[in-house]
Amino acid sequence: MTQSKSSNIVWHEGTVGRKHRELLNQHRGFTIWFTGLSGSGKSTLSVALEERLYQMGCRTYRLDGDNVRTGLNRDLAFSPEDRIENIRRIGEVAKLFRDAGLINLTAFISPYRQDRDMARNLSQRADNDFLEVFVDAPLDVCEQRDPKGLYKKARAGSIPNFTGISAPYEAPEYPEIHIRTDETSIEQGVDQIVAYLIEHGYIEAGLADTARAT
Amino acid sequence: MTQSKSSNIVWHEGTVGRKHRELLNQHRGFTIWFTGLSGSGKSTLSVALEERLYQMGCRTYRLDGDNVRTGLNRDLAFSPEDRIENIRRIGEVAKLFRDAGLINLTAFISPYRQDRDMARNLSQRADNDFLEVFVDAPLDVCEQRDPKGLYKKARAGSIPNFTGISAPYEAPEYPEIHIRTDETSIEQGVDQIVAYLIEHGYIEAGLADTARAT
Repeated sequence: MTQSKSSNIVWHEGTVGRKHRELLNQHRGFTIWFTGLSGSGKSTLSVALEERLYQMGCRTYRLDGDNVRTGLNRDLAFSPEDRIENIRRIGEVAKLFRDAGLINLTAFISPYRQDRDMARNLSQRADNDFLEVFVDAPLDVCEQRDPKGLYKKARAGSIPNFTGISAPYEAPEYPEIHIRTDETSIEQGVDQIVAYLIEHGYIEAGLADTARAT
Repeated sequence: MTQSKSSNIVWHEGTVGRKHRELLNQHRGFTIWFTGLSGSGKSTLSVALEERLYQMGCRTYRLDGDNVRTGLNRDLAFSPEDRIENIRRIGEVAKLFRDAGLINLTAFISPYRQDRDMARNLSQRADNDFLEVFVDAPLDVCEQRDPKGLYKKARAGSIPNFTGISAPYEAPEYPEIHIRTDETSIEQGVDQIVAYLIEHGYIEAGLADTARAT
């Protein structure tokens, strides 16, 4: 009836820690940090990946502009200092979520290498629990997609410091995963990430079979 | 083998939301906000409650000074504005954790009614998902316990604006749960909270039976 009855929980006295939560969830807690230009497909891909992981029984949580910029970071604007603080806080919250034993997905442009490295370096685990996914599409493709009409505004000069147009995007040099969304479908991108997670022991292959069978 | 195989997951296409995560966890996401003087027992009680909930198979995460003041809020000091911002961010992160479908415990003095109400009012659910636990012990009892030696320092004048000594503590007027830690044991306090959670439908009674049987 309840999961606790069927789970093989090894419990002794003491404070509940990350290991216990991971045991209960039957997978590790880690962060999948999506980075890429506006329109590159970060949001779409992370939503699709979360759906797949959910079907596999994984515990996930996704941080994006919708739930962060309107809440925790609503006091921040887009000045250089505020952009850094924005990513710093997201990095800290991501750390809390992986400590909570969840697979935490973040979908932010996060254009600066230094800021992403800061978020990565909050991790102190020997087994890497911070995976960077470079969601990559050429600027002209992103601009053509322009799902939020932001490139149009940026070209018209009404959005200053727009990444890719009037502000730089520093592509990851060594991302764990690199996805060209102009060459692959969302489905293929999800497959690629899931394959990486299985191959590197983040999730069990059996979970994927379950998801496909249902 | 995996939880997803035995769980009755109702899944259709669409973005994974709070309801789906709650379904997977087989309990609601909500916040248990502990408030009380230093030494009142917030930390001890929340740790013990988390252990019990874990034994019941619940997904939990506890926010306290250890994981918040050293990370997300390490840029904040103890000025009036920083104290408000400290509680605001904790309230926002608590909101994310309940959105993630977890039972989120917070253990902070949080002395001001207005700040606690701010955290409470971030909730927009018809079914109350923010429970305030007043961890109550007379000041002299807390001062006698003085687990961190803070009262001694405050009396000596080396900690300004110390709650209960040189700064006010505004006791909750209508907490969902009120625990007198000078009159009950930690075990009894946990029992009291769990009984409340079951009675008000936050968790299932069956989970508690499982925890006791194991």
